[in-house]
Amino acid sequence: MRTLNVTLPGHSYPIHMGEGILDEYLPREVLKTRCDRVVVITNDTIAGLYPGRIDRALEGTGLRVHTLEVPDGEQYKSLETLSGLYDGLMELQATRKTLALAFGGGVVGDMAGFCAATFMRGMPLVQVPTTLLSQVDSSVGGKTAVNHPRGKNTIGSFKQPEAVVMDLSLLATLPPRELRAGLFELIKHGCIQDDDLFGFLEQNSGQLSSNDWGFWEEAVYRSCRVKAAVVEQDEKEAGLRAILNFGHSLGHLIETHAGYGKVLHGEAVGVGMLFAAFVSLKLDCLREDAFGRISDLLRPLVVPVELPPLGRREFDELLLHDKKASGASLRFVLLRRPGEALLRDGVTPEELWPLFNEFLDRMPEVLRVAGG
Amino acid sequence: MRTLNVTLPGHSYPIHMGEGILDEYLPREVLKTRCDRVVVITNDTIAGLYPGRIDRALEGTGLRVHTLEVPDGEQYKSLETLSGLYDGLMELQATRKTLALAFGGGVVGDMAGFCAATFMRGMPLVQVPTTLLSQVDSSVGGKTAVNHPRGKNTIGSFKQPEAVVMDLSLLATLPPRELRAGLFELIKHGCIQDDDLFGFLEQNSGQLSSNDWGFWEEAVYRSCRVKAAVVEQDEKEAGLRAILNFGHSLGHLIETHAGYGKVLHGEAVGVGMLFAAFVSLKLDCLREDAFGRISDLLRPLVVPVELPPLGRREFDELLLHDKKASGASLRFVLLRRPGEALLRDGVTPEELWPLFNEFLDRMPEVLRVAGG
Repeated sequence: MRTLNVTLPGHSYPIHMGEGILDEYLPREVLKTRCDRVVVITNDTIAGLYPGRIDRALEGTGLRVHTLEVPDGEQYKSLETLSGLYDGLMELQATRKTLALAFGGGVVGDMAGFCAATFMRGMPLVQVPTTLLSQVDSSVGGKTAVNHPRGKNTIGSFKQPEAVVMDLSLLATLPPRELRAGLFELIKHGCIQDDDLFGFLEQNSGQLSSNDWGFWEEAVYRSCRVKAAVVEQDEKEAGLRAILNFGHSLGHLIETHAGYGKVLHGEAVGVGMLFAAFVSLKLDCLREDAFGRISDLLRPLVVPVELPPLGRREFDELLLHDKKASGASLRFVLLRRPGEALLRDGVTPEELWPLFNEFLDRMPEVLRVAGG
Repeated sequence: MRTLNVTLPGHSYPIHMGEGILDEYLPREVLKTRCDRVVVITNDTIAGLYPGRIDRALEGTGLRVHTLEVPDGEQYKSLETLSGLYDGLMELQATRKTLALAFGGGVVGDMAGFCAATFMRGMPLVQVPTTLLSQVDSSVGGKTAVNHPRGKNTIGSFKQPEAVVMDLSLLATLPPRELRAGLFELIKHGCIQDDDLFGFLEQNSGQLSSNDWGFWEEAVYRSCRVKAAVVEQDEKEAGLRAILNFGHSLGHLIETHAGYGKVLHGEAVGVGMLFAAFVSLKLDCLREDAFGRISDLLRPLVVPVELPPLGRREFDELLLHDKKASGASLRFVLLRRPGEALLRDGVTPEELWPLFNEFLDRMPEVLRVAGG
């Protein structure tokens, strides 16, 4: 069992990680918030897999525990679902001292977090992430949001939790595809900021689809430590925090162009990281041997993606998030070596298009474009 | 023309006040935000009274100015209207560098503020309040919100603006009833924290419905200074800020029980302040002569209210914001003298009910209950 403390201006909170720690650490952290009640926000899948799990963990606290369920799936991360959560909280006569407890993956965490940020202008929040992706990514950093029909995470805010309790044994019920998708964000943290973590993952690559909780505790701890360090330096995304977008430029393009739900976010980021490493190599930022190490770690894990036909104009628009301005450019995250990222502003789709095509030629088993 | 600087942890901003200052101060403050564009959020009434007013003021900046209009009225301060604002911002391809400029009264300010707090997790915000109430109350303090069908301001957040520009000549088109309603919040600031302001208002009571901009500049400045001082000490409403709720316990009851829209918020607060002063007198907190001064200032201004029949149970529920818990109590704001408020926790509806009835007997020209 390990604990990581995240220290932000005006607010600190612990992240507890370990196998089977829920019953010990959750009641302790919930009591610390001095809340008047608990409202568990979860989805129907998790509620079905772990019926009454949180109620049991909190039995000894004497607190009333209510549950609000949302449907499972990114398509429900919407203002409509959020509005239903507000209705549920009003129905329960929740107050600004009622604790919102997010029990689920990234969608539940993002939506419950935004709900907690805005109901009565802010309720306390405790996160219990149940997927690898939400453990290493969305439960650290305070970004909360719902989607707008025209853009992911368009409506949101920054909301730091009072505590995060990660019981790694919850990963046992995670579909293998989701576990693998979460892995890419974990590896990303090694790539951009922590060569020790990168080396640890290289050495233990055989464990990456295991149920060895000791391995996962170490891996998740180190990964969260990277994200926490970045967020501590740049809570509101003024600069440094952008390195967390490593792999996300092409990742976003893949996710959108494939059609949401076809390719998991982590899978898209996995391919995007390979591409970003390739761009780093081609721009003489990353050495060939370092590129080889990144490629060796990622390629066996990557889930091949086949995209619909993709022309130059669409490539530009997707990369630039649909901004129509001609001559527009983006901030691209490059690698100098495993463990060191570099922000480069002013990268244009013009530059990236030939590299994208070269990448398609070089790694056809990773990414194909139909008709290409 | 006067400027008040509000200094909060991590953020400071100016409030400029004066007659006819819009064309000089608005472009200056807008340029300081280094925004990529401006989206004016206003309502149909203000847009009709001042067509193209903001566009003209910003002409020299070279910035593109768009306008999003919402319908006028508290009933439109809803998640639905907010959702329409998000749609409009997406349509305009607004970014987190686009400036949201709120041009209107409290409803527009609250809703535009919440929109700016949450679109892309935060856009810069400039407030141009057009009513006395929004000038002295909602544009200082950073509280933003929309209503839930079951509760006012239930969904919201704290969002500080980059600047507030109050052109007092905008008050010329404000209906006299709205001007008077705003006055009560202004007087409230004198009551709770500033005996000089209270004295200034006593001495100038003849000006309280005038168009003497010099008087208003002084009155609004002093009033905003009180609110800013309170907010500087307690941005997130941990304690002291609660004194701003002086008059709001009974005010909330009146507003809700009369039916929203029947009695203006400020009018309800006006009656509520008289009641709170009366309670302070009866609890031996406020001396008889001090009560007389408060009563002398408020009674000529108060708009008589007639409420539907009101039984004991409903009185309790409304005071306790519908919380059903028996034995529940509230935090009541008392006065010790003009300029000094006192928070008292644990005040029960049981205590207040006989005082309420005594108040009805003593001031029938202020408040009546049908069938009472």
